[in-house]
Amino acid sequence: MSDLASNTSIILRLELAKTPGSFAEIAGAIGQAGGDIIAVDMIHAGKQSTTRDITVNLMGVPASEITDAIRHMPGVTLVNVSDPTFLAHLGGKIETQPKMPIKTREDLSKVYTPGVAKVCMAIHENPASAFSLTIKRNTVAVVSDGTAVLGLGDIGPEAAMPVMEGKAMLFKQLAGVDAFPLCLASKDTEEIIRTVKLLSPAFGGINLEDISSPRCFEIEERLKQELNIPVFHDDQHGTAVVLLAGLLNALKIVGKTTSDIRVVVTGIGAAGVSIVKMLLAAGVKHLIAVDREGALCRTRTYSNPMWSWIAERTNQGLKEGLLSDVIQGADVFIGVSRKGVLKLEDMKRMASDPIVFAMANPEPEIEPELAEPHVRVLATGRSDYPNQINNVLCFPGMFRGALDCRATTINEEMKLRAAWAIASVVSDNELTDQYIIPSIFNDKVVPAVRLAVIQAAIDTNVARRIPPEFRQVN
Amino acid sequence: MSDLASNTSIILRLELAKTPGSFAEIAGAIGQAGGDIIAVDMIHAGKQSTTRDITVNLMGVPASEITDAIRHMPGVTLVNVSDPTFLAHLGGKIETQPKMPIKTREDLSKVYTPGVAKVCMAIHENPASAFSLTIKRNTVAVVSDGTAVLGLGDIGPEAAMPVMEGKAMLFKQLAGVDAFPLCLASKDTEEIIRTVKLLSPAFGGINLEDISSPRCFEIEERLKQELNIPVFHDDQHGTAVVLLAGLLNALKIVGKTTSDIRVVVTGIGAAGVSIVKMLLAAGVKHLIAVDREGALCRTRTYSNPMWSWIAERTNQGLKEGLLSDVIQGADVFIGVSRKGVLKLEDMKRMASDPIVFAMANPEPEIEPELAEPHVRVLATGRSDYPNQINNVLCFPGMFRGALDCRATTINEEMKLRAAWAIASVVSDNELTDQYIIPSIFNDKVVPAVRLAVIQAAIDTNVARRIPPEFRQVN
Repeated sequence: MSDLASNTSIILRLELAKTPGSFAEIAGAIGQAGGDIIAVDMIHAGKQSTTRDITVNLMGVPASEITDAIRHMPGVTLVNVSDPTFLAHLGGKIETQPKMPIKTREDLSKVYTPGVAKVCMAIHENPASAFSLTIKRNTVAVVSDGTAVLGLGDIGPEAAMPVMEGKAMLFKQLAGVDAFPLCLASKDTEEIIRTVKLLSPAFGGINLEDISSPRCFEIEERLKQELNIPVFHDDQHGTAVVLLAGLLNALKIVGKTTSDIRVVVTGIGAAGVSIVKMLLAAGVKHLIAVDREGALCRTRTYSNPMWSWIAERTNQGLKEGLLSDVIQGADVFIGVSRKGVLKLEDMKRMASDPIVFAMANPEPEIEPELAEPHVRVLATGRSDYPNQINNVLCFPGMFRGALDCRATTINEEMKLRAAWAIASVVSDNELTDQYIIPSIFNDKVVPAVRLAVIQAAIDTNVARRIPPEFRQVN
Repeated sequence: MSDLASNTSIILRLELAKTPGSFAEIAGAIGQAGGDIIAVDMIHAGKQSTTRDITVNLMGVPASEITDAIRHMPGVTLVNVSDPTFLAHLGGKIETQPKMPIKTREDLSKVYTPGVAKVCMAIHENPASAFSLTIKRNTVAVVSDGTAVLGLGDIGPEAAMPVMEGKAMLFKQLAGVDAFPLCLASKDTEEIIRTVKLLSPAFGGINLEDISSPRCFEIEERLKQELNIPVFHDDQHGTAVVLLAGLLNALKIVGKTTSDIRVVVTGIGAAGVSIVKMLLAAGVKHLIAVDREGALCRTRTYSNPMWSWIAERTNQGLKEGLLSDVIQGADVFIGVSRKGVLKLEDMKRMASDPIVFAMANPEPEIEPELAEPHVRVLATGRSDYPNQINNVLCFPGMFRGALDCRATTINEEMKLRAAWAIASVVSDNELTDQYIIPSIFNDKVVPAVRLAVIQAAIDTNVARRIPPEFRQVN
């Protein structure tokens, strides 16, 4: 992710001798070195010197050039250089809060001993009441083993925590869901399954995250079977839901339908498998899945049962060969693979009004600048181009809906309706080549997804509770 | 806990026809039935009627007598009867909060992708930095299997949650510690050990809670050996620490010393074992441990290795027999057993100025009213008598200290010093027979325990961080 804006500023703590014009000299030196001062905070004003925190936008210059420029100036002591990103993570990014204070002995006897005993016994006698009398109603575990974190790979459970904490922040801020990050010190499929089952009583849902393929398939599948709360591997399904939302809107622009289009999906890992499944569920009939070895085809055999499943249900024309062999005439290219996989000359052989979703991170399957002149709609996983396919659009509303109706699972119908709901947030008036998908800060997204998910859960009989607004008098 | 104040009030929601004096009639009827109105809240004032919530202190009267008295009064509709204790638990008692809002795309890129990647890699390269860059620094898991919850026994993980949530509230309110409750769906010792180990990366400490004896001993012992963060079974050690604090102050009152006193401890379960160990560590030399089968003695053999350990180190006089056989001449009786175990006639055979800690819950080993005229100092586990031995005095400060110095464990020295610290909060001027232990709302307790625990951790070389106030320039 070197090219993204992950380290655009630094904070310099400087002790400056009190001489006239000393700060102006510093500012000049920083400017000459290429930095842009965006904030100055006075930390301490002494008689002889002052201490200030100066936030500098690096403007693409290495931090060392800025610090070198001022380090040896007379009267200046560089106390510390810090990075706002690291500062934001200090001490962790979430906390646990009591919902009410315990001020008196009477308060204490309500929330703890001895009063709590009768609440415990009420749950013991009727386990379903855990949904109303404990945090289960609103709490999701964000579970990872740290094996496939962002694009960083297997970095371990401790190192995965900052991502899971960030996810918990988004859950709460966007959808009011209490999420708690649990990073497990095991890579063993059976052990992870067992551990999640054992810790599930406190939770109303399980969000699996950044678990490497193919273990993620079995872990999710088994937990779905063995638990009666929703289990959702976001890397698979979140991406698939948001991609489908974008595709539905892109198809409106080009005037094509899901049943007619020819789609090529490249990169059949965790996200790719879920995307293929969702596209089939959404009515796509002509689809070819391509991995490193080429197009998946039922005439071949695969050790991975997921691949056999896909080969059985796609590629009706039994095409063989690599991406460049099967891209000819495709209406839609979907990439969840890696940088450079889609060549410009191959892209030019797609059907008219080509739709390209190049979602490899941090570098897409084709350079956006290269692709743009030749496609009708281009989407990526990046925030610095239009049409970002970001799963933050899905998981908050998905779990908000699932928790509110106490769904036993998250099924295909709930995911499909969530995709339609996300797509619907962009009105026909607003829809353009550059705006097929709403921003993650669009506050219509979560309510729309929630409603769609609850209705789908009710329709498919997986809702254990009908929220008030769905209780209709007929 | 039938005799404790766990259901002293109800809330009646009443719809009252608007006729002169109607509320006065209601109030009169409630009063005549034996209830005491303590609050009235207007919920809705309509043209024809008003809706009010009336909180009634039951004063020992069954709730049905109050509701029957008003249910059939003309113009009164009893909409709902609720219980403030249950209302306090609705939806659970804790929540997860982001420490900062995510307002802009720049905020998002700091706390989540792409910026979070470099924080992840910093932890991957130096795992110890998880203490500064994740919630590990301030977060404790409260782990139970629901097998020994309060006095309720094996009620299961879901039903144990209200207690663990209450504990998490106390952790945060009293000591600023973020605690998260995890109730496990297993009673298997090995499986619990394994699960806690697997989920430990996110946490800076493990508080084990309400796990039945003897499994709790092995679970705690093994986790202490196999993890490098503090593991503390509060039912054992919290009780022992607070008991010792109370005993130290009681001894000041009677002018006796730990090395001289003769102590009888009855009930050698989880708490009893830890109490015996602490008393020995605190310098008690004459101690007899008594269980249902009688005094533990090295001349006998025990299947439970803890009992053998205790028999080896106590009862130097090799006394045999039941409590009534060994109580003769004891200076201190400590009960963590059950109601009625200590007979008045046996108590009267103790030494002069007898000290009695009758901590069985909810009903002590001897009725306080019966014992009081004959003892010098009486303590119980109950809040409705003086000298409550409540482990809420220990665990918040214990973990606050352990987290602040990143202790690898909680050892005997840290527990001893915590006991001294709790005892020291009651000054010599304040100390009386009726006030040997501070209130859990005394705000000097947590800071005192924290300082004592950190100093002990530093002295015994289990601190991985020296907090600023302990960094002395020599």
